[in-house]
Amino acid sequence: DGGSYDAVHDASSPAAGDCCAQQSSAQHNWEMNYQEAAIYLQEGENNDKFFTHPKNAKALAAYLFAHNHLFYLMELSTALLLLLLSLCEAPAVPMLRLGIYVHATLELFALIVVVFELSMKMRWLGFHTFIRHKRTMVKTCVLFVQFIEAIVVLVRQTSHVRITRALRCIFLVDCRYCGAVRRNLRQIFQSLPPFIDILLLLLFFMVIFAILGFYLFSPNHSDPYFSTLENSLVNLFVLLTTSNFPDVMMPSYARNPWSCVFFIVYLSIELYFIMNLLLAVVFDTFNDIEKRKFKSLLLHKRAAIQHAYRLLITKQRPTGVSFKHFEGLLRFYKPRMCARERYLTFKALNQSNTPLVSLKDFYNFYEVVGLKWKAKRNREHWFDDLPRTAFLIFKGNVRKTMFSDLSMFLLYFPDTVVAVNGIWILVETFMLQGGNFFSRNVPWSYIVFLTIYGVELLLKTTGLGPVEYLSSGWNLFDFAVTLFAFLGLLALAFNMEPFYFIVVLRPLQLLRLFKLKKRYRNVLDTMFELFPRMASLGLTLLIFYYCFAIVGMEFFAGVVYPNCCNTSTVADSYRWVNHTVGNKTVVEEGYYYLNNFDNILNSFVTLFELTVVNDWYIIMEGVTSQTTHWSRLYFMIFYIVTMVVMTIIVAFILDAFVFRMNYTRKNQDSEEDNGIVLEKEISKEEVIGIIELYKRSSAATETSQLQKIVLQMDKYGQMSTLFLGRRSRTKSDLSMKMYEEEIQEWYEEHARKEESQTPSQESAPASNSSLKPLSLRQRSQTVI
Amino acid sequence: DGGSYDAVHDASSPAAGDCCAQQSSAQHNWEMNYQEAAIYLQEGENNDKFFTHPKNAKALAAYLFAHNHLFYLMELSTALLLLLLSLCEAPAVPMLRLGIYVHATLELFALIVVVFELSMKMRWLGFHTFIRHKRTMVKTCVLFVQFIEAIVVLVRQTSHVRITRALRCIFLVDCRYCGAVRRNLRQIFQSLPPFIDILLLLLFFMVIFAILGFYLFSPNHSDPYFSTLENSLVNLFVLLTTSNFPDVMMPSYARNPWSCVFFIVYLSIELYFIMNLLLAVVFDTFNDIEKRKFKSLLLHKRAAIQHAYRLLITKQRPTGVSFKHFEGLLRFYKPRMCARERYLTFKALNQSNTPLVSLKDFYNFYEVVGLKWKAKRNREHWFDDLPRTAFLIFKGNVRKTMFSDLSMFLLYFPDTVVAVNGIWILVETFMLQGGNFFSRNVPWSYIVFLTIYGVELLLKTTGLGPVEYLSSGWNLFDFAVTLFAFLGLLALAFNMEPFYFIVVLRPLQLLRLFKLKKRYRNVLDTMFELFPRMASLGLTLLIFYYCFAIVGMEFFAGVVYPNCCNTSTVADSYRWVNHTVGNKTVVEEGYYYLNNFDNILNSFVTLFELTVVNDWYIIMEGVTSQTTHWSRLYFMIFYIVTMVVMTIIVAFILDAFVFRMNYTRKNQDSEEDNGIVLEKEISKEEVIGIIELYKRSSAATETSQLQKIVLQMDKYGQMSTLFLGRRSRTKSDLSMKMYEEEIQEWYEEHARKEESQTPSQESAPASNSSLKPLSLRQRSQTVI
Repeated sequence: DGGSYDAVHDASSPAAGDCCAQQSSAQHNWEMNYQEAAIYLQEGENNDKFFTHPKNAKALAAYLFAHNHLFYLMELSTALLLLLLSLCEAPAVPMLRLGIYVHATLELFALIVVVFELSMKMRWLGFHTFIRHKRTMVKTCVLFVQFIEAIVVLVRQTSHVRITRALRCIFLVDCRYCGAVRRNLRQIFQSLPPFIDILLLLLFFMVIFAILGFYLFSPNHSDPYFSTLENSLVNLFVLLTTSNFPDVMMPSYARNPWSCVFFIVYLSIELYFIMNLLLAVVFDTFNDIEKRKFKSLLLHKRAAIQHAYRLLITKQRPTGVSFKHFEGLLRFYKPRMCARERYLTFKALNQSNTPLVSLKDFYNFYEVVGLKWKAKRNREHWFDDLPRTAFLIFKGNVRKTMFSDLSMFLLYFPDTVVAVNGIWILVETFMLQGGNFFSRNVPWSYIVFLTIYGVELLLKTTGLGPVEYLSSGWNLFDFAVTLFAFLGLLALAFNMEPFYFIVVLRPLQLLRLFKLKKRYRNVLDTMFELFPRMASLGLTLLIFYYCFAIVGMEFFAGVVYPNCCNTSTVADSYRWVNHTVGNKTVVEEGYYYLNNFDNILNSFVTLFELTVVNDWYIIMEGVTSQTTHWSRLYFMIFYIVTMVVMTIIVAFILDAFVFRMNYTRKNQDSEEDNGIVLEKEISKEEVIGIIELYKRSSAATETSQLQKIVLQMDKYGQMSTLFLGRRSRTKSDLSMKMYEEEIQEWYEEHARKEESQTPSQESAPASNSSLKPLSLRQRSQTVI
Repeated sequence: DGGSYDAVHDASSPAAGDCCAQQSSAQHNWEMNYQEAAIYLQEGENNDKFFTHPKNAKALAAYLFAHNHLFYLMELSTALLLLLLSLCEAPAVPMLRLGIYVHATLELFALIVVVFELSMKMRWLGFHTFIRHKRTMVKTCVLFVQFIEAIVVLVRQTSHVRITRALRCIFLVDCRYCGAVRRNLRQIFQSLPPFIDILLLLLFFMVIFAILGFYLFSPNHSDPYFSTLENSLVNLFVLLTTSNFPDVMMPSYARNPWSCVFFIVYLSIELYFIMNLLLAVVFDTFNDIEKRKFKSLLLHKRAAIQHAYRLLITKQRPTGVSFKHFEGLLRFYKPRMCARERYLTFKALNQSNTPLVSLKDFYNFYEVVGLKWKAKRNREHWFDDLPRTAFLIFKGNVRKTMFSDLSMFLLYFPDTVVAVNGIWILVETFMLQGGNFFSRNVPWSYIVFLTIYGVELLLKTTGLGPVEYLSSGWNLFDFAVTLFAFLGLLALAFNMEPFYFIVVLRPLQLLRLFKLKKRYRNVLDTMFELFPRMASLGLTLLIFYYCFAIVGMEFFAGVVYPNCCNTSTVADSYRWVNHTVGNKTVVEEGYYYLNNFDNILNSFVTLFELTVVNDWYIIMEGVTSQTTHWSRLYFMIFYIVTMVVMTIIVAFILDAFVFRMNYTRKNQDSEEDNGIVLEKEISKEEVIGIIELYKRSSAATETSQLQKIVLQMDKYGQMSTLFLGRRSRTKSDLSMKMYEEEIQEWYEEHARKEESQTPSQESAPASNSSLKPLSLRQRSQTVI
């Protein structure tokens, strides 16, 4: 229950102070309020629950200590250090092997840092909240176990079976910077129940078909796949992944052609129906969760804004927040913001003409605070006055619908060059017949194309100016590719063999062709938008990989080697023999012994191969033949886990693209998407007013910047300046627009729910039970 | 333009008659109107375009001839005969081989039947419409080619390369019964443009990586996969299907571990990103098409209803259709409907209290006409009066939430038995160690479980009566499984080996456990709902298979055989050697020579293996090594085609389930889904009134049935009887409910569009440009 914490909070908080107790430190009090409001807004943004809000000055100090990038970086680097230790611990990557003494000491050091971090967290959360916080408790337990194990290793000077190392991931997951990974994991766990239901259906059919297959095919002694029920089960599980497909059918098909019906029916039901059903169920759950998550985040942000608002209003002016208090908040919330931006943000928020921002306007806080403000220039480029064609040469990448033929030619010329170059490279490569490509002279085509690219790049840079040129992703890409091509030319010209790989990157230039078609531009834009989320999903997958890699290394390190597994059916794949046929030495190499768990890098590659699924049973059977039958469990569980994660990744990509396409279809009228843009005008008097305000609080650096604006205005004889606020569109903005109608319902529903919780004991407009201590504090402020 | 046809229609139609020309045959005229209205309604239902509507009496006769099940069956059987001929034509299935003379004659015969069908169609459509109808024209051309080829074969007495046989599918596709297949094909073609866009992206990245791979790995001479650019391209294409995955990486990985990065990046981009993007795009297009299809079908039905309505109203009573005319319509539209049902349909349509059905009510025609009417009985079962527990024994499969323990026990007893039996079978099978399972005695467990099932079945049948018992799908399944188990017992007891397969079906009983969980019941219900659509998708796939099988047989029949392909890298898979090691004969068998194109059945199995994708390159390389490099094109095109069809199947399953789940979520309040149910009460006077009406038109069979109802009412002393109309819910019903709001918009939009097309020259409420000739005809009717 939150009440008890509130009580603690009130009693011990010198910042808030019981009414009239510390009237003298009014300004200090206001500073505390600004800070707390900023913390509330941060909590709202990061989706931190309010019960972890610091309750008193000591907690606040710890909170501030634990909430800055230095601390976060420390957290992250300790976690990474712990994870990377598995590169050096036995079985280690040969080049990185460290003595037990060294790596155990390193581990102890990292664990001690984690202990320090946790103690800071406990100080900030308080003991009660700390033990209520599940993730932190799990982390503490894991830390304890790891500590004991590290000491045992150090004492015995030898490593025991340490599967618990797989749990080290939790240190990374708990990092501040890995919030996205935590969200992914939560989403995976939420999708699990329906997933497991369908998985059971899948396994059930598998068992039925295994029994049927055993009865049908075990009389055939040339069929090794169904000889026992266990074989039958394992092979049908592998068949589910299609990995052994025509082979598993062949012995029975050779004997009776109609036996193919069994396999066709099995695959149709399992692979083509139930597997897709799995995707459908996960996709649906995912969709639903995404929407609910958006809703709860939206409501959480709203509550945070309400909390912050309560801390900023005074009893004299209860209808809104004045610029003075808003400025105080922003000083804590965004310390790097300059005075001009603070004022512009305030103006952008303020929809009414009063000098106060009401709660309704304040609700837009998160949308407005991210805007980057720039004075609007009347002319965009110095060459805007030049004749049309010359202008186009400079602008280069602008595309309008109707142009003269010459302009069209100039517009598409670079793309034509790229296309010709692409075909050239293809044909040239096709003509090559292997061998060393770099001993020859530099081909003239290389120089011609590079010259064209170079000229284009120069023209564009002159036209747009280097900063604006490089601010576009496509231009940056062009630049990088051209630079690489140039370096490649140098490498070729001076015969620097180690750099030959640069030449190889030339075909990447073809990517530029994708700017041409709208669908591709959309796809690539969506891809870039998805990138952070994709990266976090990839990281989530890597965390699973890490766990499995550790377990795999503990159990299977060193079990497969060349010419092992001779008792298994896949012995051929592990063979490595030097025949001598006549005079020639023939090497029969199966290579599969390379897919082992001998160190963590090898394990990762092996696990990736298992993820791709094809021929994974060769790896499984190889390891199984060298260990026990139970090893199969490891591989099967890994398959199911990656299936879950992969299905969720597919569902995510599906969801993101379908959402985007729906959005585009809904907003076909609004042609080009330039992000969120807001325009605000500031008059000279306003600026002078703010300067006065700042002078009173004696902030010299701030005033000097504002005075510059006044000087600028004087210089051009303007009475006001127009500023443009700009930011890129986020998924949240799109969702806001998609669910426009529903959002209002959510707000109303939420307000109704809150009202029923706090039966109108307060007359404040947006009464919230957790706000009570704040209203107490407000009373103390009104004395000022 | 439709106008010219309308003119033809009016001028030559004796049925409609120019006003006042044939007043004497008024009744005949009405009959013609009924028939035409019925035809309109059928066209609306089948989504036939109105421009194919028969224009005159001759056309009508041909239309009626070509629109009945006998004709449809003839169409279907001719098409099937033509398709099945490829079983007997060289290369034929050995057992079905026919002489060239025989199968060519059969083919000619079938083609002549098709000519006859087409001539009927031309008679009905008229020459102008006939040559405008694309599908029919393609069919005619194919027919012409086939005809010439069949004659050539017959004259030369030898078969030439007849790839055109692949086109025979069109005869099947054009069948009346294959409307779903046509829709699927249309949907596939509509999804193609965005699909191809993304496919190009996929291939583009493939080319880039192929060039990169060639430069990076071709210096390694032990790497056969990247030795030339062609090899590089082919292997990356195969890698796209993951079919050669760890193998293609191994030679380079063995030389330099970091080369795995190339493959990981390639697979991440191509397989995990772009392939899913493909699915997203197809899914989105599919969704969109489904909605547009639903919309156009809805509007088409509405137009059909308008057309029919115009033919049924008279000038005296322009506000609605009387029962007399409605009855006339139904006589043509649903000849098998009895008089009682016709009246009930009329009553169900009629929302007002007037004796006329207005246009607004008439719009519900299609929803109401499918209802099956039954008099509502007061008691459902004869055992409803028995005590609760006994009742439950009989009812068996009813489940309520709160029961006494005993009832709970009785409810779950059968399921428990099934579960125990399932585990029993599993354990028993696990204990078996191969060999002949059927020489032993009948196990006692078999008898025990079968007895329990038998008793349960008997109880239920007694309880519900055999008809009602078998009307539930689950009960039917229970019955079938128990019957099979009994037959299996007999087979075991009397040692009839040929029937051993029945025993093997026992584990299917486990399927009954799926009734227990709601989600599974939902899944299985949806599965059954989807079944027709899935079947049509399967048939579409089979049609593609047929085309590829014919082409494959023409080019690759007989090219692979045991120990062929020794020059290729996959020679091992085609090996078939009898070693003699010591005293033992060891057979090394690769079996892949069984995956050939030697006859159409083998081709189908081979194509299924190519669809499953795993190890498909072994088949491709085998065939390629025996023919030319260009053979790869066949396999690659087949892969892409199946990828399209499979993606659409996945999108369909996704769409269907997501739709269903959304629907369930939206309608959580309405617990159980019993289909559409409508209740109507009929009083005695009404029935007597209808009898009078029928007596006048002297339909004896109809009146006798109605009189029975009157007798029944008299017997029970009732003044009225309640009838229940019932039908199962279709996708269309669900869509109606899902798009409720939008549908009204569509109607309005459509009405506005029509108004703008016909600038208010008619005062009729729903004026439609194509209705003009009908209004002419109506004038002639008003003379009656």
